[in-house]
Amino acid sequence: MKKIGIIGGIGWPSTIEYYRLICEASQHYHNDQEFSGPIPIPEIAVESLNMNFTVNNRGSSKSGSWETWDAYFKSAISRLENSGAELILLASVTPHARLNELSEGAGVPIISIYESIGTYCNKNGIKNLLVLGTMPTMTSSAFKYGVEKFGIKVIYPPKNELKVSVLKVIEELYQNKTKGASSAINEIVHSCLLENQLNTTTVCLACTELPLAFRNFDGKSTFNYCGVKYLNTSALHAWSAFEACLH
Amino acid sequence: MKKIGIIGGIGWPSTIEYYRLICEASQHYHNDQEFSGPIPIPEIAVESLNMNFTVNNRGSSKSGSWETWDAYFKSAISRLENSGAELILLASVTPHARLNELSEGAGVPIISIYESIGTYCNKNGIKNLLVLGTMPTMTSSAFKYGVEKFGIKVIYPPKNELKVSVLKVIEELYQNKTKGASSAINEIVHSCLLENQLNTTTVCLACTELPLAFRNFDGKSTFNYCGVKYLNTSALHAWSAFEACLH
Repeated sequence: MKKIGIIGGIGWPSTIEYYRLICEASQHYHNDQEFSGPIPIPEIAVESLNMNFTVNNRGSSKSGSWETWDAYFKSAISRLENSGAELILLASVTPHARLNELSEGAGVPIISIYESIGTYCNKNGIKNLLVLGTMPTMTSSAFKYGVEKFGIKVIYPPKNELKVSVLKVIEELYQNKTKGASSAINEIVHSCLLENQLNTTTVCLACTELPLAFRNFDGKSTFNYCGVKYLNTSALHAWSAFEACLH
Repeated sequence: MKKIGIIGGIGWPSTIEYYRLICEASQHYHNDQEFSGPIPIPEIAVESLNMNFTVNNRGSSKSGSWETWDAYFKSAISRLENSGAELILLASVTPHARLNELSEGAGVPIISIYESIGTYCNKNGIKNLLVLGTMPTMTSSAFKYGVEKFGIKVIYPPKNELKVSVLKVIEELYQNKTKGASSAINEIVHSCLLENQLNTTTVCLACTELPLAFRNFDGKSTFNYCGVKYLNTSALHAWSAFEACLH
């Protein structure tokens, strides 16, 4: 199995999810096979960054404003490469907005979460997504463009106050505080459906912390909660990496 | 804060515990302080090894038999150093039996779990430990010598069948299967007390997977379960690292 590199810490609870999902995927994959000793797990290198630094050094649309942020991530990517990682994951949706810039000069592939989501939706006939994520994910075009390549139409919470409610949930989840999070998300979703005059849609939990709100649906790529279908992006992304590490 | 390096994957569930405990310790430490942006968390590099390889390449008392095993761990330690780790943790008790060999040539300190346990026991007046761990931990002299320096007397499960029962629990925990584990451990402990004609003792969960059996006592260095006092070695060790990363 290839060695997997993870850029983590943004935030740390979803880094745990990625690592756990990959290790469990390896357990499932190897379960029926006979081994001498414990079940093989791929080697994994994690570079867990300080999110206080990444958030405070986010750029804007101003030219050159992402320099510090890019350099911080690029040096972590190069440390993972030096540690022998053969494929790399950013264990967070938000930094994917800079995926093109981060991939420049990287010696190994960075597996895109947009591609994991797009491929899954194509296979499962999902054509529309209501996307909940951090403010950069819900306001910049990166996510939209990233999955539109796969023919998927993206909508975001239509009002700023709904976006702010999503952020409040995420801020708690960054600290691993999950209490009340699932019903808060469900309430936001129903307000979005009402605003958009939709009966239903698939909700893309497009911040890798958000699936932590739904502990009961752990280990599933999609699940239904209060009549709504949710997409667990961390699981899709982590499983893409495990697939890639086998080949 | 200094950058922390973790040698993980042996097994992966306790690697998650170490990472989580350090991140939560940083949250608690910084909680009352004002920050712009998310709570600072130290940078952490993890090198997660393949336990199938480590277990199958364990040495014996034969000279030179640890060569492959030592080389595998030493190269991971050097990768962590190259990634900027300023202190290193082996997130597992068993490899501590080779701590002296692994520390040779390491450019940064490897924080010993024996020292974390010894220091805690000294501070809290604990003088005797019933030690449950992997077979190397319960049969070699490394653990005993490691904590005897702190004036602590160590006993192990007195019969081979009791040691084997401990291993069975650990094997399940390596796969993150916790069901029934706490009562199985408690039963082993009571048999050990009976065999040794003791009324009580402090039980040292000296395999970093074992505390996973007691999810209800999460985040505590010691806890009481069915009249027995247990020591959570992963927590003691992870907190030593966080302390060290502050200074």
